[in-house]
Amino acid sequence: MITVLRLGHRKKRDARLSTHCGLAARALGADTIVFSGEKDQQLLDSIKKVSKNWGGRFKASYEKDWRKAIKNFRGTKVHLTMYGLPIQDQMRKIGGKRDVLVIIGGEKVPGEVYRAVDYNLAVTNQPHSEVAALAIFLHEYFAGRELRKRFDGRLKIVPQEFGKKISI
Amino acid sequence: MITVLRLGHRKKRDARLSTHCGLAARALGADTIVFSGEKDQQLLDSIKKVSKNWGGRFKASYEKDWRKAIKNFRGTKVHLTMYGLPIQDQMRKIGGKRDVLVIIGGEKVPGEVYRAVDYNLAVTNQPHSEVAALAIFLHEYFAGRELRKRFDGRLKIVPQEFGKKISI
Repeated sequence: MITVLRLGHRKKRDARLSTHCGLAARALGADTIVFSGEKDQQLLDSIKKVSKNWGGRFKASYEKDWRKAIKNFRGTKVHLTMYGLPIQDQMRKIGGKRDVLVIIGGEKVPGEVYRAVDYNLAVTNQPHSEVAALAIFLHEYFAGRELRKRFDGRLKIVPQEFGKKISI
Repeated sequence: MITVLRLGHRKKRDARLSTHCGLAARALGADTIVFSGEKDQQLLDSIKKVSKNWGGRFKASYEKDWRKAIKNFRGTKVHLTMYGLPIQDQMRKIGGKRDVLVIIGGEKVPGEVYRAVDYNLAVTNQPHSEVAALAIFLHEYFAGRELRKRFDGRLKIVPQEFGKKISI
């Protein structure tokens, strides 16, 4: 079970980035995303709508108290941050863990998050994107198998060399 | 040389997502990003500022005529799209190519893009995020070596197990 915790969501400013976090988490094999920060029902609805149409059992929810969400999680707690240790050196310790909480920021992550987790992992020590960091984490965690995950939704793409095909 | 072409940028709506595309491209080893759609000097400046502070030779530019940008590119042209063929089956054909143009959408990608490229690649056939798709493409293209790229910037992170450390 992979749970993603997205910290510090701001309804106006982060709507699309948080949606991308949720959809990438779903598409790349995570089971759940929990948003903290401002409550945003539209965000949750947009992710639920994708799950309904495209299949799978992905869940999206809101938790105001992110401290509680981290504290109560039973399993391995990972924070993705440019300040952490290189993911490529740490991943062999994490790849085998069954239940993993993956925490991704918002703009400013409180210092206590760094100390509340088992691993602070850097997907490069350069500034870039929590969506990109999450994608690479999941790709490494599942060792590429996530790309073959089946969703069996109402909508389904028939892969094409050139063009678009959806079967309904 | 990896060039990323980001189509259909809208100044207001896409500012942050396009920034994430640019910064992820830079951090994960691409050489250039070209934005099309609405011209957005702030977007270019924000990416240039990161490069200035954090190092490397990454370039960001604007090209109004995306058709020309695709047509004039000499090398392998790849379009990342959920409608394409699975990346995991196609990557061995692309991993060895020296000059690659990686095209990522905006919301609606014109049909002619699908026919103007050598490969339409799907990072899963599920809807998610061009940032996530780009990250996984670059990670596969460089086979993980991009994570060790050195930037030698004015700002530099000293990786920490718990906490933050920047050397200036």
